[in-house]
Amino acid sequence: MALPTQADDFPAWYQEVVRGADMAENSLARGTMVIKPYGYAIWEAIRDALDLRFKQTGHENLYFPMLIPQRLLEREKEHVEGFAPEVAVVTHAGGEELGEPLIVRPTSETIIWDAYSRWIQSYRDLPLLYNQWANVVRWEMRPRLFLRTTEFLWQEGHTAHETRDEAWAETLRMLDVYRDVVEDVMAIPVHKGRKTEAERFPGAVETLCIEALMRDRKALQSGTSHYLGKNFAEAYGVTFLGRDGEEHHAEATSWGVSTRLVGGLIMAHGDDKGLRLPPKVAPVQVVIVPIFRSDDEQARVLEAATRLADGWRALGLRVKVDDRDDLRPGYKFADQELRGVPARVEVGPRDLDAEQVTVARRDTGDKTAVPLPAAGPWLVDAMDQIQRSLFDDALAFREANTHAAANYDELRAAITDSGGFVTGSWCGAPDCEARVKAETKATIRFLPLEREDPGAACTVCGEPGTERATWAIAY
Amino acid sequence: MALPTQADDFPAWYQEVVRGADMAENSLARGTMVIKPYGYAIWEAIRDALDLRFKQTGHENLYFPMLIPQRLLEREKEHVEGFAPEVAVVTHAGGEELGEPLIVRPTSETIIWDAYSRWIQSYRDLPLLYNQWANVVRWEMRPRLFLRTTEFLWQEGHTAHETRDEAWAETLRMLDVYRDVVEDVMAIPVHKGRKTEAERFPGAVETLCIEALMRDRKALQSGTSHYLGKNFAEAYGVTFLGRDGEEHHAEATSWGVSTRLVGGLIMAHGDDKGLRLPPKVAPVQVVIVPIFRSDDEQARVLEAATRLADGWRALGLRVKVDDRDDLRPGYKFADQELRGVPARVEVGPRDLDAEQVTVARRDTGDKTAVPLPAAGPWLVDAMDQIQRSLFDDALAFREANTHAAANYDELRAAITDSGGFVTGSWCGAPDCEARVKAETKATIRFLPLEREDPGAACTVCGEPGTERATWAIAY
Repeated sequence: MALPTQADDFPAWYQEVVRGADMAENSLARGTMVIKPYGYAIWEAIRDALDLRFKQTGHENLYFPMLIPQRLLEREKEHVEGFAPEVAVVTHAGGEELGEPLIVRPTSETIIWDAYSRWIQSYRDLPLLYNQWANVVRWEMRPRLFLRTTEFLWQEGHTAHETRDEAWAETLRMLDVYRDVVEDVMAIPVHKGRKTEAERFPGAVETLCIEALMRDRKALQSGTSHYLGKNFAEAYGVTFLGRDGEEHHAEATSWGVSTRLVGGLIMAHGDDKGLRLPPKVAPVQVVIVPIFRSDDEQARVLEAATRLADGWRALGLRVKVDDRDDLRPGYKFADQELRGVPARVEVGPRDLDAEQVTVARRDTGDKTAVPLPAAGPWLVDAMDQIQRSLFDDALAFREANTHAAANYDELRAAITDSGGFVTGSWCGAPDCEARVKAETKATIRFLPLEREDPGAACTVCGEPGTERATWAIAY
Repeated sequence: MALPTQADDFPAWYQEVVRGADMAENSLARGTMVIKPYGYAIWEAIRDALDLRFKQTGHENLYFPMLIPQRLLEREKEHVEGFAPEVAVVTHAGGEELGEPLIVRPTSETIIWDAYSRWIQSYRDLPLLYNQWANVVRWEMRPRLFLRTTEFLWQEGHTAHETRDEAWAETLRMLDVYRDVVEDVMAIPVHKGRKTEAERFPGAVETLCIEALMRDRKALQSGTSHYLGKNFAEAYGVTFLGRDGEEHHAEATSWGVSTRLVGGLIMAHGDDKGLRLPPKVAPVQVVIVPIFRSDDEQARVLEAATRLADGWRALGLRVKVDDRDDLRPGYKFADQELRGVPARVEVGPRDLDAEQVTVARRDTGDKTAVPLPAAGPWLVDAMDQIQRSLFDDALAFREANTHAAANYDELRAAITDSGGFVTGSWCGAPDCEARVKAETKATIRFLPLEREDPGAACTVCGEPGTERATWAIAY
């Protein structure tokens, strides 16, 4: 387990953590991955937190087919231009060449809005508040485990509304659901914002996003919520009889997050020892490592460990006894640190004699001797503390790595020398945006949800600024 | 809502129930379907019940890619012969023709056992008890909503073991998990059994199954659990260092159930009014239909309905107020019956004056006036009763439609005239099995898990019988 340091080689660190913590591995077809049980359990925790909130906000799940006739994609002009180069195409099935090729969904607006044209007739049919959990395929030239894979798992919400106001409110509501899950459950602070036109979802009127900062000072787009206006309703002929007796096109939103979030979790919290998992998503919250020399000690310690684990599970903790009998405790410590288990409990004969256990927190590394009867509640409380401390830590890191730039030299220096988020005034011109990207690789990650007067000249061209922009180099 | 009767036209009844209850519809690509929210919520309930039990029996979820290089499929001879004619093939992606075609998984033994060859080195790595929830594609010539669709949702467990005994115990254990979910949660009685060689999964040594009887007296294979022996370990080179210091091939199982179960639920319980849903899987367990004439009555009744719904939800019931203001109560009654909601509660001004509600049970049609303070607990209790009564009803139906045949004339007459399950002695010869199939369309649905001496001559050929077989015409 020779983990490279983050400072030495962040990409190698990332790859080695994913491998060493048994989260995922590359599979055979280009850019595809196997999500292994430890990585999948984290995704399940994120998924369950999202699904709960989708249902609490009135959404229902459904499922659309993965295979879409190619002609359907072609109806919305910007959408097809955005996705056509990335699609995988089924040309043969059942031993024959198909009359019409089928594409594997890269996203499902096309097939869903085609169905909505039949489902929506009257304002009484609205709103439709639907979501699906699905796999999608986008052919990636530079794949990377979790962050950018040819096939990935995600959810995609697709809603239809009577009015612009309702659709816009939905776009904001779901963005805030994402913020809540990423901040409260994954302990990653995010900025909510608006994308520039260049960074918008193909076919959207506005793309809203949450953006997080990773430990290598690069930004990660962690979720998007799109206000689609009437674009898809017009392309797929979705009209309804309104309260006014007239036919109207429906207003649309779509929103999604994916297994990319697992990559974000690794990079937002990890340190040179490996993962640091927030307790709310940790598959194992407490790992008990038994310490013993003789067979007698082993029997005594394992019996105590099993009893403690049962008691703590009854308090709602996810507890594992690391009873692998071919590994030394020191190896297990390092292995469980690599896996980011929030708390490690050492149980040895001397601990039992003293009626205590030794608890090591993964977030801080602090070791504490905790009297045995109180250890369960102590650990429950520690989970809250670790959850909060990881968030605070990530927030402090982000604030320490956010810089303001007053002119182009400062902007370029901040991006190149410091990294992180760099804020500045922008005139709104795509040329200025493109220049920064070409010269620094940084893109505008977000604009404020509500346009703010930057009160300063454009950082790039010096013309009057119209937006407060935040730049970063991004994944 | 002109629902055909089951007796008149069962397939039309099925199709109309699926449509009318808003469960699913055909989609654009051949044989694909959209699972609509009401159908998907039922699948979610089944899935959650299964997933809980998988985890309770020590299994973990993971996720393998959907796209599999074609050459991988070709390693296990029977497996490729079984699945090659059904696969969909991706030949183009990212705007180019692929060097090697990728197949869309029809099942995942091939890609999983290829990975297991790297994951399994020593007996310490065993057992692997993994499951995945996924979509699969099998090109179907005669598709039918839920029962046989080109793409379907399922779970597939894939386990690896040191010994034959362990793998066989796992095969039986998971078959019993399926029996438990289908009987206890879905209220459908099933037979556990063994498939004949002709009906086995391609590549399996033994295929075990659960078989249920539908209301049209046809059988539905509702789940399968395969003992794969060393077939896949040999094909994919999965060996491990055993406790004896020697290299061994791993023993395997795989097991799966799919969205086909939703079709089984419809056909096992439905009647001429539509679905009858067991409370444990019903998305809505109690529907409140407000009855009113004037606006004043409407306000009073809706206020009461909302209050009652909140109180009953606090007891754990899934309650919906059918407050659609453009529909008459009689229409709602029929609509909610079609949707199979276990209990309907009518609330009108006279009910409120008398401090009672009128409850109609979907399973029996019984209507009862229930005093208001006691209505919540009464409904909770009714859910248990309905769950049990649907099971008992299906069991009685199955028993009334199970016949014993002593000779070929009886066998043929029972299959052709009565339908249902027909039991008889079988000599074990594939010819006898094939003759029954050719002449009656019935197949051997299962043999007992443990071979039983039938104590009689083969029902087909009159030679000595070696197995007790159960025939039926099946989906």
